[in-house]
Amino acid sequence: MNILEIIRNKRDGRKLTDDEIDFFVKGITDGSIPDYQASSLLMAIFLNGMDIEETTKLTIAMAESGDMLDLSGINGTVIDKHSTGGVGDKTTLIIGPILAALGVHTAKMSGRGLGHTGGTVDKLESIPGFKSELSEERFIEVVNEVGFSDVSQTKSLAPADKKIYALRDVTGTVENYSLIASSIMSKKLAAGAAGIVLDVKCGSGAFMKDEESAKQLAEVMVGIGNNAGRKTVALITDMNEPLGRFVGNTLEVIEAVEVLKGHGEERLTEVSMALAAEMLRIASCLEEGKDGKCSPDTDRFMAEIKRVIEDGSALAKFREFVRAQGGDDSFVDDYSLLGTAEYTFDVKSSEAGYLASCDTEKIGLATMHLGGGRQELDDVIDPVVGVEIKKKLGEYIEAGEILAVIHSNDRKKSEEAADMIREAYTLTDSEPSKGKTVIERIV
Amino acid sequence: MNILEIIRNKRDGRKLTDDEIDFFVKGITDGSIPDYQASSLLMAIFLNGMDIEETTKLTIAMAESGDMLDLSGINGTVIDKHSTGGVGDKTTLIIGPILAALGVHTAKMSGRGLGHTGGTVDKLESIPGFKSELSEERFIEVVNEVGFSDVSQTKSLAPADKKIYALRDVTGTVENYSLIASSIMSKKLAAGAAGIVLDVKCGSGAFMKDEESAKQLAEVMVGIGNNAGRKTVALITDMNEPLGRFVGNTLEVIEAVEVLKGHGEERLTEVSMALAAEMLRIASCLEEGKDGKCSPDTDRFMAEIKRVIEDGSALAKFREFVRAQGGDDSFVDDYSLLGTAEYTFDVKSSEAGYLASCDTEKIGLATMHLGGGRQELDDVIDPVVGVEIKKKLGEYIEAGEILAVIHSNDRKKSEEAADMIREAYTLTDSEPSKGKTVIERIV
Repeated sequence: MNILEIIRNKRDGRKLTDDEIDFFVKGITDGSIPDYQASSLLMAIFLNGMDIEETTKLTIAMAESGDMLDLSGINGTVIDKHSTGGVGDKTTLIIGPILAALGVHTAKMSGRGLGHTGGTVDKLESIPGFKSELSEERFIEVVNEVGFSDVSQTKSLAPADKKIYALRDVTGTVENYSLIASSIMSKKLAAGAAGIVLDVKCGSGAFMKDEESAKQLAEVMVGIGNNAGRKTVALITDMNEPLGRFVGNTLEVIEAVEVLKGHGEERLTEVSMALAAEMLRIASCLEEGKDGKCSPDTDRFMAEIKRVIEDGSALAKFREFVRAQGGDDSFVDDYSLLGTAEYTFDVKSSEAGYLASCDTEKIGLATMHLGGGRQELDDVIDPVVGVEIKKKLGEYIEAGEILAVIHSNDRKKSEEAADMIREAYTLTDSEPSKGKTVIERIV
Repeated sequence: MNILEIIRNKRDGRKLTDDEIDFFVKGITDGSIPDYQASSLLMAIFLNGMDIEETTKLTIAMAESGDMLDLSGINGTVIDKHSTGGVGDKTTLIIGPILAALGVHTAKMSGRGLGHTGGTVDKLESIPGFKSELSEERFIEVVNEVGFSDVSQTKSLAPADKKIYALRDVTGTVENYSLIASSIMSKKLAAGAAGIVLDVKCGSGAFMKDEESAKQLAEVMVGIGNNAGRKTVALITDMNEPLGRFVGNTLEVIEAVEVLKGHGEERLTEVSMALAAEMLRIASCLEEGKDGKCSPDTDRFMAEIKRVIEDGSALAKFREFVRAQGGDDSFVDDYSLLGTAEYTFDVKSSEAGYLASCDTEKIGLATMHLGGGRQELDDVIDPVVGVEIKKKLGEYIEAGEILAVIHSNDRKKSEEAADMIREAYTLTDSEPSKGKTVIERIV
């Protein structure tokens, strides 16, 4: 077997064998296949496609190219959740404690923010003392003690994906469902959970801008997960405006705590509960050994989720989790302990009308511009800055009424960010129709 | 403009602009575009294709990436001929002198042999004293004095093609008509002739195995040539058995001289005359300023070609050409002056039957095995070895009758080569139909 033969096979539209895919991934990992041959194959894959069997095999091979997390030390079923990235998405901070309160374990590896999307690790590290770099041993200990741990992704997880992704980025081979799905899922498989719930964001603030492409990506990812022996479900959720009211690191931590206190913003609460319910459902299927035959009825789980929010046990789990990872949980009672930005700056609407659409990516970029996100991987973020969105899509706004409030440590950047936020919204005279928040469920 | 945008455009099936193609070829030439991006674009070109405008532009850009030969110092029209490569093809040695005798100039840059195909430069260098490396000045002087010169290709001709070809070779992007045609034609455009006649070989000894693919390649090359302002015609000629009786360097020189003496083998003579007639026709069109409106009637030219063979003037031009490039032409009267192989070895047929087909590539490889060709670019060849084919396709052979004679300096290799030659032929009981030698003319 040689790489040239594999390139020619895919070029000519043939299905790659498991051995061929293994050969490619091993060669990428150990450097024996030069970049120019890998990129030629990636373009052939991009244009001629891979079916779900090839895509699953690629994903497994990439997952196995580095460390595979061993979660067998955890007492109970472990369910993972993954979001394809959006603006204002703090659901992980809400769901982990809820599941822990209901006895389901979440052992999560999260990323840092880049570009217009935030990262859970950055949010957590805005809590004084919080450590996101734990040893694998301590990570599993926290999961067993608390039921939830969230650490930053180790370097050795799916190294083949890391190399392939870097190459795709510079060779015009990013936007392909099989390649995107295998990249995401390889890390999920390596992270070891028995069940996976995917939150595939869809809309102006997401990687997938329309429902059709979000659905296609979701179907490939769910196919991979189930083929690889992990019970997998995806929800397609709306990202045509920020999720919740706040964008920015400490602001989002506070908003997550508010949801756990029972005061959550409607859409954020809906998405968090829907995802948590799917995770509970999968956990219950796996525990009862009914793999593949779970009822889609989630009413029971919804009731349980509401209960652990109302009785405070989810919030108690959140505090326990923060303490277990070295953080000071007293901010839960006094948010000012997280620090505040020097200025708040009202963004007023220059005209009147219904908020018809939002270029959500611009809200994320405005937050980044304020210092709340990263342009480059080694940028240092300012945790306290961000944006509070005062109006939802579909609402009417008067000229001069406050659209958003900026939290900033730099007056000039505030003004630039304000312009970005105003530009992000389109106003109309007639009331626009309202889309669904949880759009579709893919099993 | 950046290369990623160009890759994405071709990936998404868009036509590349002239500027984009220039950007790519310049970046390849100066090394500013890394191989992994170039190979990604090449695969996108391979799979999504280029139209004749894009292909022409690519060819011109590659031609202009290095030295462009200036033939303005030549007094008269210069016509070039190019063969896509076959076994036993010595037409260049025959055509140049014929054209020179008729006052049409051929300023030719030829290659060396590699793999199963021979190279004109190797054949010429088997003549004692012959020099194929001339200064550009002397090259043009010889053309003006004799009407024909043939030198080895300089290194700086179409360097972009050289780099792109090397990359295609290792990235599975060789077999594409636009890329093959632009590679060949870039060197022809850089070589400066006003008219180009292409001999597109077709069959078991050629790069193009069937008529349909030979025709497609010919059409793209003719399109490029004419679009680039060179009057271009292609003949598709048969390569389902070696052209002429001899394969090997001195053996082929001798056979070429035999044609010029009027004793040429039928198929070799037919192809040589057909190509020479096309070159004369193009020259006459260009001289009369009737570009694009030439009559396909070649009778007049055929008569002239016969005349210069019969009256010895073409042979005289051959001798003049050999002397002008430092060679000793006395071998024309005594072939043994070229040296002979130590052994001749009869290859007898093991069975009786009609010769139905020949794996011509194997005859080329047998010659290479004897030392008459190169496996690697820096192999040293033995000029006197080779193969004489005694039987033509369609002829009947008895068991034990001589199929071929091997000229060799190594007894063991002779036996191995004999096996290869026997294996190359398929025998049948019934008389096979005979194909055409000059199959089609593409204008």
